[in-house]
Amino acid sequence: MKLLKVEPLTKEAFAAFGQVIETESSNHFSINNGSTERYHRLADVELAQADDKAIISIFRANRLEYPLDIKMLERHPQGSQAFIPMQRQRFLIVVAPPAGTPSADEIRAFISDGHQGVNYGMGVWHHPILALENDSDYLIVDRAGEGPNCDEHFFADDEVFTLDGREFLNN
Amino acid sequence: MKLLKVEPLTKEAFAAFGQVIETESSNHFSINNGSTERYHRLADVELAQADDKAIISIFRANRLEYPLDIKMLERHPQGSQAFIPMQRQRFLIVVAPPAGTPSADEIRAFISDGHQGVNYGMGVWHHPILALENDSDYLIVDRAGEGPNCDEHFFADDEVFTLDGREFLNN
Repeated sequence: MKLLKVEPLTKEAFAAFGQVIETESSNHFSINNGSTERYHRLADVELAQADDKAIISIFRANRLEYPLDIKMLERHPQGSQAFIPMQRQRFLIVVAPPAGTPSADEIRAFISDGHQGVNYGMGVWHHPILALENDSDYLIVDRAGEGPNCDEHFFADDEVFTLDGREFLNN
Repeated sequence: MKLLKVEPLTKEAFAAFGQVIETESSNHFSINNGSTERYHRLADVELAQADDKAIISIFRANRLEYPLDIKMLERHPQGSQAFIPMQRQRFLIVVAPPAGTPSADEIRAFISDGHQGVNYGMGVWHHPILALENDSDYLIVDRAGEGPNCDEHFFADDEVFTLDGREFLNN
């Protein structure tokens, strides 16, 4: 079994895949007469076409079974996709750099501390949401527009990495 | 003293001001082999200019002093602005319909139950964030682009409404 190492989610480690949406070590300034700090522009929504819209949705996710074999990844070639936990819940992230097909050997795994969201850059390969508990809600900011916007890649059996994940479960 | 009545936040009651971002009574469909429900397109990001970008920020807000006099409202003439609580925290909302200047007699107040975000439509008058606790984080989706995008209107003393708000404080 080829096990993925799970890394802490940091802006630096995640830079090749998109942005980490968090206050930690992010630029901010005071607004509203000093009652609010604005952690500004932590992520940009990427849209491929002039008529595309940025839209806001909620995903309500159940946890998968861990250990989990990473048999596939998907990408959105026409837009970025942001996931922000709405209940401070931790979640796992599995990504591979943009390329015609994802390379199994370039897969990286991260754990969000529950205060961190992510914005997958346009075309970045990623696993569907890896929740650690049932009925966990994520705010999603992604793209609506013309044409197909989801590619899936399935790995050959001997390419499959496994994400253990059990250490992160609460129950 | 002219007191504002605080209404529960519902899609219907808020329709003139923008969208309520919530799963409750929202359309959804299964994705990710049934492990996730997508509550789809709860809000659209509105952008005035072709080169504008939708951006994602975090506001860390302190609570104001309640009762609070609503002395001013602001609006963003070039884009919508969404506020989504990141810790299931309740918050207050004060709005007035789009117009050259807001009418004090058309001001409405709402309370989010902490599972609900809001997206103020482009040009909708609203009060800066009305947090009910200190260090409360909100995800913000709004606009970056050229030109001024914040108008403020200050009410005459005899127009000022008061938001009591104390019943919603936790501490």
